[in-house]
Amino acid sequence: MSQKTGRTSRAEGTREAILTVAERLFAERGVFAVSNRQISEAAEQGNNAAVGYHFGTKTDLLRAIIRRHADQIDELRTTLLAETADSPHVRDWVACLVRPSSRHLDALGSPSWYARFAAQLTTDPVLRELAIDEAFGPSIEQTLHGLNRCLPSLPVSVRLERGDMTRTLLVHMLAERERSLADNAPTARSSWDDYASGLIDAVTGLWLAPVAG
Amino acid sequence: MSQKTGRTSRAEGTREAILTVAERLFAERGVFAVSNRQISEAAEQGNNAAVGYHFGTKTDLLRAIIRRHADQIDELRTTLLAETADSPHVRDWVACLVRPSSRHLDALGSPSWYARFAAQLTTDPVLRELAIDEAFGPSIEQTLHGLNRCLPSLPVSVRLERGDMTRTLLVHMLAERERSLADNAPTARSSWDDYASGLIDAVTGLWLAPVAG
Repeated sequence: MSQKTGRTSRAEGTREAILTVAERLFAERGVFAVSNRQISEAAEQGNNAAVGYHFGTKTDLLRAIIRRHADQIDELRTTLLAETADSPHVRDWVACLVRPSSRHLDALGSPSWYARFAAQLTTDPVLRELAIDEAFGPSIEQTLHGLNRCLPSLPVSVRLERGDMTRTLLVHMLAERERSLADNAPTARSSWDDYASGLIDAVTGLWLAPVAG
Repeated sequence: MSQKTGRTSRAEGTREAILTVAERLFAERGVFAVSNRQISEAAEQGNNAAVGYHFGTKTDLLRAIIRRHADQIDELRTTLLAETADSPHVRDWVACLVRPSSRHLDALGSPSWYARFAAQLTTDPVLRELAIDEAFGPSIEQTLHGLNRCLPSLPVSVRLERGDMTRTLLVHMLAERERSLADNAPTARSSWDDYASGLIDAVTGLWLAPVAG
């Protein structure tokens, strides 16, 4: 191994260690409560400025955490979309919104921290934009396009509103199950897959609801 | 006015001032980021321990803020329940879940802070229990009972799950509109009443959805 490669992979290892620790600390103590210095210390980096050196600002660090998961979720969604083809069923497209995230959390094993981390971002007006920017890729666009094709008469404003409701519901309900698992609290659904099915039922109903108001 | 009455009403005024300031600071900066001392200072109480003197712990203060709003929301719900009588329509019962909160926020005027404050409580595992304890009264129980009567074949576990989804959706969607109004951001729905109608449509669909999963 050349000196350069050794240095690169050491830097990679440090970056990974920081990302893992930061995600856990943010999930457990809150994005605003945890400083870059605390993360550097918890990641056992001799240098208290390690976060700044490897990532830049806290925003850059948050972005990198989202990126790491979003890429994997995107991959799962692309696979599912191929199976969904041009389904005329709302439920199939809702499944493309829900299952990639639940499968990703399942694959992370327990305890995971990403769902709780993501729920915090969604609640904050500034970080929320960041999360949407980073996580909103072509696979989500394609899913929403498929969903829209099944519901051609839904007014655009209602479409946007229900998209917002869907995101809100998913993010917080996934975080809730993640928290229950982390706390060893009882859960009514025994698996992420089962839990996702309950969400898909409800979210499908939400989209199919007639517009009375 | 006797000396005693004067002292009591001064204490009442101080309590009110503290509650108002605390709610705003919590909503804008976060429940964990704001200390009792900061609240005492912002409420312009000469005594930095004013919060402790008038309320006790931070938990007691949070409880008092919830109580103040929950009582008014409960009153609005009781009135609505009287009109709903024994309706066989899911939508009417969902309206009894949604409208009391949206009407209360409407009555508070803009900017209000309560919806954003409540959203934070819901996201925190400990504070969430507190919020449910304080806000869950007989009027909610009666509403859920009416809803259940319309959906006799829904399994209990799904009922609980959808109740959870409903609470999550309401709390965060109401906070989102409150935030938009506070920021003078554009809103698709011009009034709280209209916004509530969109939520009622969607939540009704969520409850009526068949259980496939």
